[in-house]
Amino acid sequence: MEDIEEFKYEPKSVKEIFIEMKNTVELMIDLAYASILFGDKEIAEEVLDLEERMDLLNYQLMTHTVLAARNVKEAEQATTILQMANAIEDISNAAGDLAKMVLEGVELHPIIKETILEGEEIIGRIVVSPDSVLVGRTLGELELASNTGVWIIAVRRGKRWIFGPDKEFRIRAGDILIGRGTRTSIDQLKEIARGVIRVIGNERVRGD
Amino acid sequence: MEDIEEFKYEPKSVKEIFIEMKNTVELMIDLAYASILFGDKEIAEEVLDLEERMDLLNYQLMTHTVLAARNVKEAEQATTILQMANAIEDISNAAGDLAKMVLEGVELHPIIKETILEGEEIIGRIVVSPDSVLVGRTLGELELASNTGVWIIAVRRGKRWIFGPDKEFRIRAGDILIGRGTRTSIDQLKEIARGVIRVIGNERVRGD
Repeated sequence: MEDIEEFKYEPKSVKEIFIEMKNTVELMIDLAYASILFGDKEIAEEVLDLEERMDLLNYQLMTHTVLAARNVKEAEQATTILQMANAIEDISNAAGDLAKMVLEGVELHPIIKETILEGEEIIGRIVVSPDSVLVGRTLGELELASNTGVWIIAVRRGKRWIFGPDKEFRIRAGDILIGRGTRTSIDQLKEIARGVIRVIGNERVRGD
Repeated sequence: MEDIEEFKYEPKSVKEIFIEMKNTVELMIDLAYASILFGDKEIAEEVLDLEERMDLLNYQLMTHTVLAARNVKEAEQATTILQMANAIEDISNAAGDLAKMVLEGVELHPIIKETILEGEEIIGRIVVSPDSVLVGRTLGELELASNTGVWIIAVRRGKRWIFGPDKEFRIRAGDILIGRGTRTSIDQLKEIARGVIRVIGNERVRGD
């Protein structure tokens, strides 16, 4: 509760808070699987940090929603927002539980990693070579999710992690991208990142 | 429990069951959001059916996992599978809770639909025209997730729903595809489905 008391009141609309909650919980699940796959405690810690952020967002959401209801009909409708927020919070907690498996340091059964690598959507690690057309371009310009089917959920730059990079994030040579997509998508992005494929998505020219 | 007693024993590996659980829960969340977005009770019922399927899978998984452990080390590792299965089951329950909001028939707050339409990943409805290059091709051939960034989670064909269509599913004119992807991806697939864009992903020729 201390965190909640400390939090600076930032007026936001219910909708903005709710969209942030939905986006955050999706990122949390992806990061939780990534933390398990790579046995990476830093990623796992980020999931727990986001879980705390979710608690704050849920608190803000409740306050705003309750404040906004002016009659019984609005109160009934507002209840559906709180119901959905609860479900999202449950998913957030489940992602936190997954991350805790990594932090507990218990040796995970090999099937767990295999499952994350062989489901319909998988998590992959993509190393950006200096020759790649990705270098120097932002995620907003590249639109990798639309052009290659890969969502970038985190980036390793030197010793630092960037989690949930935004549209302004500019890729550099040496970056390690953590992405979610089909096996085909991930493999294609790896070729782009290695500099073998010289264009992304629509244009298509084979390089060198 | 009756369902569990009735279920026909199908020997499967722990890994196969686990991968099916992970894929199923991802489909459930997508379908839950779709059921809310379209106010569609049939989709919501499918989520609850999948929730039951998840219970069976979890039961199978536990049996297999417990049977397979031959010593303390294996038992410890096996526990991590059950821990992860629990988290996945929690997410499945949350998806079920979302679907129940639709089945309860309470009027949902408009912000809920807006959130599903304006998050980073959204749900869209794509109508396939007879002119589209999608017609007559299977999802396996098209690889829409890699080529357009859109996951097809369900298809409406006449009065019938097909949920979680597989690679062999062949698209027909008039099909309504329910997909998950970025706004850009969904819009691009709509153009392909309308017959405006005549190629998918890599080739790229503007049609007619």
